[in-house]
Amino acid sequence: MKKGYRFERELIHMFWRRGFAAVRVPASGSISYPVPDIIAGNGNRYLAIEVKMRSKLPVYIPREDVENLIKFSETFGAEPFIAVRIPNMGWRFLSLNNLKRTKNGYKVDDEVFHSGLEFDELVSNVRQKRLFE
Amino acid sequence: MKKGYRFERELIHMFWRRGFAAVRVPASGSISYPVPDIIAGNGNRYLAIEVKMRSKLPVYIPREDVENLIKFSETFGAEPFIAVRIPNMGWRFLSLNNLKRTKNGYKVDDEVFHSGLEFDELVSNVRQKRLFE
Repeated sequence: MKKGYRFERELIHMFWRRGFAAVRVPASGSISYPVPDIIAGNGNRYLAIEVKMRSKLPVYIPREDVENLIKFSETFGAEPFIAVRIPNMGWRFLSLNNLKRTKNGYKVDDEVFHSGLEFDELVSNVRQKRLFE
Repeated sequence: MKKGYRFERELIHMFWRRGFAAVRVPASGSISYPVPDIIAGNGNRYLAIEVKMRSKLPVYIPREDVENLIKFSETFGAEPFIAVRIPNMGWRFLSLNNLKRTKNGYKVDDEVFHSGLEFDELVSNVRQKRLFE
C-alpha cells in the first residue's frame, strides 16, 4: 500500500506539471461510494483514474473496479481510465474498451498495455483524439 | 478534526443524493498543492468546496485558504464555494465575491451567511443562476 501511494503521488505531480489540477481520493472507509484513486481536471477535460501498480503483466482487474469507475465517471462527468504502472515499463493509460474480458473481470496483457496511451498522449488533446475517432 | 470530518461526510451524502458524485480530498500531507476539502460534479457543473464548521458567526477565513481555492478551481475547472456550517443554522454556500474582506483575509458574518445559497439552491441550476446574473 505504501508503494502504491508513492506512485499515485508521482502521477499527481505529473498532472500538475502539465496544467491539470489532480487530487488523490482516499479509499472511502465507511462511505461506500464508487470513487476512483485520482481525479484530475484542466478546465476542459476531467479524468477519473483507477491506478494499478503491479510487478508484471498481465494485470487482472476485478469487474467491480471497472463498474465503479464507470458509475463514478458517468455521475461526475469524467473520462474513465485505468492507469497501469509496471517497473521499467512506466505508465500506460487504458480506456475501458481496450481491456480484455476475463471470466471475473478484465485484464491488461502485453498487447493491451502497449495499446494504451502514454502520459504525454493522455494529457495532449491533439493526440488524445485518436482514442475517440 | 473528527467533528469536521463527520460534517464533510454529511455533505458528501447530500451531494450523492442529489445526483452529484462527490469526494473528500485529504489534507495533502507532503504534497503541497492547493486542494479543496470536497470536489463534486454532475457532468454539467463542477464544484470545489472549502468547508468551515464553526460554533458561531463570524467565521474568519485566512486569505491563503481563499487564494488556494481560487488557484485550484481555475486549474481544475470548478466553481469555488466556501461551505459554512453553524449549529442550528445548517449549511450555507458562499461564492467568493460574497465574503467580506478583513485585514488578514475574509469573514462570514451574519449578513454574508444569510446571503449564501442553501444546499437546494446550490445544486439547482435554475435558482443558482441568480449568483451569476
